[in-house]
Amino acid sequence: MTPTFQFSKLRAFALEVFRSMGCTDEDAHTATNVLLQADLRGIDSHGLARLSGYVRLWEAKRVNSQPKIKTVHQTPSTAVVDGDQGLGLVVAPHAMKIAIEKARQVGTGWVAVKNSNHFGIAGYHSMMALEHDMIGISMTNASPLVAPTFSVERLLGTNPICVAIPAKEQPPFVADFATTTAANGKLEILQRKNKNAPQGWIQKKDGSASTNPNELKDGGALIPLGSDFEHGSHKGFCLGAWVDIFSAVLSGANYGPWVPPFVSFLAPPADPVGEGIGHFFGAMRVDAFRPAEEFKQHMDNWIKRFREAKTVAGQTRVIIPGDPEREAESERMKEGIPLNEKVVEDLQKLAHKLNLTWVN
Amino acid sequence: MTPTFQFSKLRAFALEVFRSMGCTDEDAHTATNVLLQADLRGIDSHGLARLSGYVRLWEAKRVNSQPKIKTVHQTPSTAVVDGDQGLGLVVAPHAMKIAIEKARQVGTGWVAVKNSNHFGIAGYHSMMALEHDMIGISMTNASPLVAPTFSVERLLGTNPICVAIPAKEQPPFVADFATTTAANGKLEILQRKNKNAPQGWIQKKDGSASTNPNELKDGGALIPLGSDFEHGSHKGFCLGAWVDIFSAVLSGANYGPWVPPFVSFLAPPADPVGEGIGHFFGAMRVDAFRPAEEFKQHMDNWIKRFREAKTVAGQTRVIIPGDPEREAESERMKEGIPLNEKVVEDLQKLAHKLNLTWVN
Repeated sequence: MTPTFQFSKLRAFALEVFRSMGCTDEDAHTATNVLLQADLRGIDSHGLARLSGYVRLWEAKRVNSQPKIKTVHQTPSTAVVDGDQGLGLVVAPHAMKIAIEKARQVGTGWVAVKNSNHFGIAGYHSMMALEHDMIGISMTNASPLVAPTFSVERLLGTNPICVAIPAKEQPPFVADFATTTAANGKLEILQRKNKNAPQGWIQKKDGSASTNPNELKDGGALIPLGSDFEHGSHKGFCLGAWVDIFSAVLSGANYGPWVPPFVSFLAPPADPVGEGIGHFFGAMRVDAFRPAEEFKQHMDNWIKRFREAKTVAGQTRVIIPGDPEREAESERMKEGIPLNEKVVEDLQKLAHKLNLTWVN
Repeated sequence: MTPTFQFSKLRAFALEVFRSMGCTDEDAHTATNVLLQADLRGIDSHGLARLSGYVRLWEAKRVNSQPKIKTVHQTPSTAVVDGDQGLGLVVAPHAMKIAIEKARQVGTGWVAVKNSNHFGIAGYHSMMALEHDMIGISMTNASPLVAPTFSVERLLGTNPICVAIPAKEQPPFVADFATTTAANGKLEILQRKNKNAPQGWIQKKDGSASTNPNELKDGGALIPLGSDFEHGSHKGFCLGAWVDIFSAVLSGANYGPWVPPFVSFLAPPADPVGEGIGHFFGAMRVDAFRPAEEFKQHMDNWIKRFREAKTVAGQTRVIIPGDPEREAESERMKEGIPLNEKVVEDLQKLAHKLNLTWVN
């Protein structure tokens, strides 16, 4: 059985870990909030399961726990931020705040970030815009695990996009997804359960079809959304490429196969084309287009109409983007957060190494 | 054998058709340029094949051939444009120009459009940004033909997105795609050839799988990019929804199932939630982020690296978004534009009706 833990206790533990790395109190809080939001929202691959990975990158001096984050270029509606090799968990909310402030001033704000690291779940950052009656957009590139259509080489990350849109009575529309057929986290679940993956998620080293969830360890690759050319994988490739270019070519970060790996045991490419990994953020004030009340009423109408659509046999509802994550959050706040045993073991080791007390 | 026609002759014919509808000379030229660009770039479903459809909408008084296009709201980086029921072929370039002008002023420009009609290929509009060293974005909603994941109802259009990004020596990156597994135009080709569609493109009225390309006539639906839930069709649904909300909820156009049909023999919904169909455009000055030369050099490097990727057996190259359309354009400029016999017949009838001479 999977053990579950109280949110507040896991939160306190993560906070101590980031403090041990030398983060300021404010940064430790920010990083913890972003990380735990993933566990709460049911995106287990991006929460505490990654905490020891961030620590190892810090030990390898590939994460700077006390970054001086700088705006290196700007116009009224844009900025480029240098993350100074900080935790993406800290750099990303900083950049998103700039986007929101610019939107307040001129209607929209767009911030490209270089020299950063893994930023947790995209959803956290774009959802920051919601309380300001703004639409939030976030995207990031990531280590190359994905082969473009017809390629055997892994040239793109799972490059997620999130768009968060406020409504009035209805909960917000939050679409947060990897631009691959399946996110890497789903493969990890199959690996743990010793199960095969569906056709169309992964390919072998030579590009032929595979259902082995461990294929990536043998030089295989994830496949862009669409699964194959006949079903539009070139469109998934377009999406992943778009994220890569906005995040890294606009900002001056590494792109494509040059993106440094998340895992500390793999060295970054010796011939970087930029600095660190890249993100891209946007904020659009709803009332820069039409009165916010009017917009949000129509969003309510939109959401209700789609939620009430007649379903195929065996399904009870059409899922509005953001529904499953919000439901997970409300359940996990009450019932606790389930952590896989291997993740617990990993965190116990981390506690021991940093001389901290693991949750009890 | 498919007859081919010289670009200049088809262009002259389309120009006369738009003039016959009462378009100003300037608008007739704009509409013709957008329309013919589709035929040149090999997107046959969006070019002359649609010309008589536009005329029928005008005859039904659902297209205003002499629109007074107005900016009804704006901030330094945003605008909402009322297309006054004009041809999308005319309204869209007007709106894109505003986005470009705003980007010149404050770094980026974002324009939502209501009260418009079908705007041709998305690519034309976003590519307008390229010569200004800007990134161009365009999207539009469309008549509901697509069922969200788990829905049997058709609630979204094929809602395309195009992102155009300039490079230096390399041709630009132009990703222009419907957010469905397959565009409707691909079904039309199968219908003409009397061939089955692959699994995963369409579903029957009850949501079950189908390979019949005529399924839409019996209440079936197109499927969002991803084909099924296991392969990420909920992500395709997110994309289509995003396009719908940006194009119509932001602007005040009709959204979801309320989008009026393109074909004049189907009446628009009796309970509209907005005006006409909606589009959304963006322009971002590259040098609002980093020096344009530097950006474009890195784009060259990006494109070259991806184009030179090692391919799977049986394929000779990885296709960069925009390659196939550019190659079609250069071939068709030289060799002529092939038109399906049914399209030729339809255009001949149109010529007769408007008392014009068909191309000879």
